[in-house]
Amino acid sequence: MTEAVLTISSKNYSSWSLRGWLLCKMAGLEFEEEQLPSDDPSTRAELLLLSPSFLVPCLTHEQVRVWDTLAIAEYLAERFPDAGLLPEDISARCHCRSIAGEMHSGFQNLRSALPMNLKARLPAFGTWTGVKTDIDRVLTIWQECLQTYGGPFLFGEKPNLADAMYAPVCTRFQTYDVKLDPASASYSATILNWPLMSEWIEEAKAEPDELEELDVEF
Amino acid sequence: MTEAVLTISSKNYSSWSLRGWLLCKMAGLEFEEEQLPSDDPSTRAELLLLSPSFLVPCLTHEQVRVWDTLAIAEYLAERFPDAGLLPEDISARCHCRSIAGEMHSGFQNLRSALPMNLKARLPAFGTWTGVKTDIDRVLTIWQECLQTYGGPFLFGEKPNLADAMYAPVCTRFQTYDVKLDPASASYSATILNWPLMSEWIEEAKAEPDELEELDVEF
Repeated sequence: MTEAVLTISSKNYSSWSLRGWLLCKMAGLEFEEEQLPSDDPSTRAELLLLSPSFLVPCLTHEQVRVWDTLAIAEYLAERFPDAGLLPEDISARCHCRSIAGEMHSGFQNLRSALPMNLKARLPAFGTWTGVKTDIDRVLTIWQECLQTYGGPFLFGEKPNLADAMYAPVCTRFQTYDVKLDPASASYSATILNWPLMSEWIEEAKAEPDELEELDVEF
Repeated sequence: MTEAVLTISSKNYSSWSLRGWLLCKMAGLEFEEEQLPSDDPSTRAELLLLSPSFLVPCLTHEQVRVWDTLAIAEYLAERFPDAGLLPEDISARCHCRSIAGEMHSGFQNLRSALPMNLKARLPAFGTWTGVKTDIDRVLTIWQECLQTYGGPFLFGEKPNLADAMYAPVCTRFQTYDVKLDPASASYSATILNWPLMSEWIEEAKAEPDELEELDVEF
């Protein structure tokens, strides 16, 4: 019997929670979800974009505790090597980790100007220069992967770690109506139609709105 | 014969370059350094704190190209397993990756308010609330590691991936004269006296000043 718990925050707003959840599902881990309430300090900080949420997502599994999305990804890749979270080829594996790392540490403008909000459609956003630079870099990353590995996912036929990292960006491009080249639009549609994504998005839409609960105007 | 090149930017200002360089040295990799000039767009962006420097550091080794500091770390840990970049115990390994991940994706206030500057002593900085939260979290991370694994490095007798990630923070605490508890002060001194750090700092001090070259007032 597997005893695993994944601690997450808002399904509508927390892109890190989504990434951690996708990774656990892709690994085939059986786990329970523990959702922090909206007045939890970690959740609140993330909702208000005050700071990255250091301790969410957090996975406890077989007496091991691991937090931070990339650390969870590496743990799952080690523990479930057959799940294909990382490519087998060393060059592709380095490529995958490099672009996962870019998403993990970068794109601050994209994160703050176009926060994940699965319930919303806000097409007027996202035109200032800093965001454009971030968007262009994301699209370059996608185009290079799709050309090199043939799609429909970033590293070929099956989704892997990199797709989990970029999945919330696809939702942002939809929410804020960001114009995409055909290859990127096709990739984004692949991600949004991925059954795991549909499952998460449906659950997000069924949640009470945490920002309203926090009396924050959006 | 090993053909490896590590691309870095400023030794005085680039904390990511320092981390990548420490990791390569700790892995025992023989490599050449390629230093980008101060008017290179990546260097310029990093010096002006405009964005994380996506493509620096970058390691090319045996026809593999890997960028982003954590991706380089994972590559080196795989390729040189005897170097001890990651702890062998699964629980300690998860702990190490979790705090490395926190440093990689977080601490924005610390980064922007207390940028790495090895040549400077600027003790008036660093008193606003956002920075204090970041500093407190760093010290909590250090104290937990030092208590759990016994020091003098974060995971015991030898430096590993986590120490490479937090080493630039020790220089910032010195530059901006941040007050530390005794355990953290002792850890910080261990890092600053680590021969690899002394070597890097000496080379940084010998560099022409890139911010002056960019006509930026500090």
